[in-house]
Amino acid sequence: MRFFKTVGAIAVCPIVAAASVNSSAPLTYGIVLFRMFDVLDVFGPVEVLQFLSHAYQTEIVFIAETMEPVTTRPSMAAMNPLNNSVWSTLPPTHTFETAPELDVLIIPGGPGWRNPAWNATLNYIGQTAPKVKQVLTICTGAGLAAKSGIMAGRKATTNKSSWPAVVQAGPNTTWVPKARWVEDYSSSPPVWSSSGVTAGLDMMLHWVEKVYNKQNATNIAKYMEHIRITDPSNDPFARNESMTDVAKFMEQSGN
Amino acid sequence: MRFFKTVGAIAVCPIVAAASVNSSAPLTYGIVLFRMFDVLDVFGPVEVLQFLSHAYQTEIVFIAETMEPVTTRPSMAAMNPLNNSVWSTLPPTHTFETAPELDVLIIPGGPGWRNPAWNATLNYIGQTAPKVKQVLTICTGAGLAAKSGIMAGRKATTNKSSWPAVVQAGPNTTWVPKARWVEDYSSSPPVWSSSGVTAGLDMMLHWVEKVYNKQNATNIAKYMEHIRITDPSNDPFARNESMTDVAKFMEQSGN
Repeated sequence: MRFFKTVGAIAVCPIVAAASVNSSAPLTYGIVLFRMFDVLDVFGPVEVLQFLSHAYQTEIVFIAETMEPVTTRPSMAAMNPLNNSVWSTLPPTHTFETAPELDVLIIPGGPGWRNPAWNATLNYIGQTAPKVKQVLTICTGAGLAAKSGIMAGRKATTNKSSWPAVVQAGPNTTWVPKARWVEDYSSSPPVWSSSGVTAGLDMMLHWVEKVYNKQNATNIAKYMEHIRITDPSNDPFARNESMTDVAKFMEQSGN
Repeated sequence: MRFFKTVGAIAVCPIVAAASVNSSAPLTYGIVLFRMFDVLDVFGPVEVLQFLSHAYQTEIVFIAETMEPVTTRPSMAAMNPLNNSVWSTLPPTHTFETAPELDVLIIPGGPGWRNPAWNATLNYIGQTAPKVKQVLTICTGAGLAAKSGIMAGRKATTNKSSWPAVVQAGPNTTWVPKARWVEDYSSSPPVWSSSGVTAGLDMMLHWVEKVYNKQNATNIAKYMEHIRITDPSNDPFARNESMTDVAKFMEQSGN
């Protein structure tokens, strides 16, 4: 395992480097890609890290089973009944075999998390997570992480609309029904998990605040014109544990 | 010009089709790509439209000068002083020459909007905008639109941190310093413009509410766990017109 690299960060106004030029910061962030990933689960963190890279040496690698561009297109026709073309493809930079050592492993969600055929993806997550400094899951990425086995004994959250399925995938995980995000430092590596999609932005900005500094988080939010939730217990989409199906949840929420 | 296609939309719970199966809705959304585009300016709208496509026939095309994957990597080394690798590439589906007729033209922003060499991009925007039903700009995409000439006589907004440069690019545009987004229906086609990055999500969800229906907007926001701003005049990042440089703006905002 390679630890965070010490870099001589330079200040690029108004994204600021830490006070000392000997700041320690993560260098390599790896994002796992799989068919039917959620685009914002991936590009929310990418956007934040791109801003951060103005002041800190940063690498993002996109890791998938093969070097084929990864598509968001459903693999089953039933999931695309109108035969739409609204899909994106993202070329990976590495395969699971060629991926570099990572400081931070990022696991996005998306409909594909349910696919039972992602053995190589689950193996990669299971084998890589213990070797990194931090694991971050976004939305239903927590479900994929659970299926890989790395969430056992952990405290986590996920997208409240996908709650029943994700909870079922992680029977040995303490799922927090009211959390914008959860930080679990109970064992190494720490695992941060966010609620649905844009909750990932709030988690990433809090991550920047904690791992880098508050000023950067504030400045990046301002550039993105993102109105942050800074308290992880502030969850407007909190799950009511007494409800067991999503349709009922949506109905009772006024929809 | 092809008008919105009438489709027999099906209801996929909880994203709902309009009450009538004869609903009229836009079919083809085209997103312009250029080097150094902002990833969230592109994928914010894509995420919203993907959810919407559960109930409405929808196409997204990614349009660029060539079929080469478009990168967010700066074209000038000075813009990447730490020689970082945090860049994404997105393969276009069409070139400016092969793009289909569009119902909606989406113009993202990003540092690349300032590039003086985007003549083909500006020509495409200038020639295409008059033929579509609606134009949507995200963040500094309004600056690119202004450079193409389509914003003359229009009312618009943009990222408040990039305000001076964008305003300069659109001397005949009425720039609104306090707006999460602006809807200009003064001439055809209507032009919607959002403030920075995540303001694009609020604009897109309001677009869904207006062009499709409120229930879809509410449901999509819930899935994304996005806390909406629904009043376009609610702008926490509003520009103070008396300030003329970004550094001062950032400083006086408490950063």
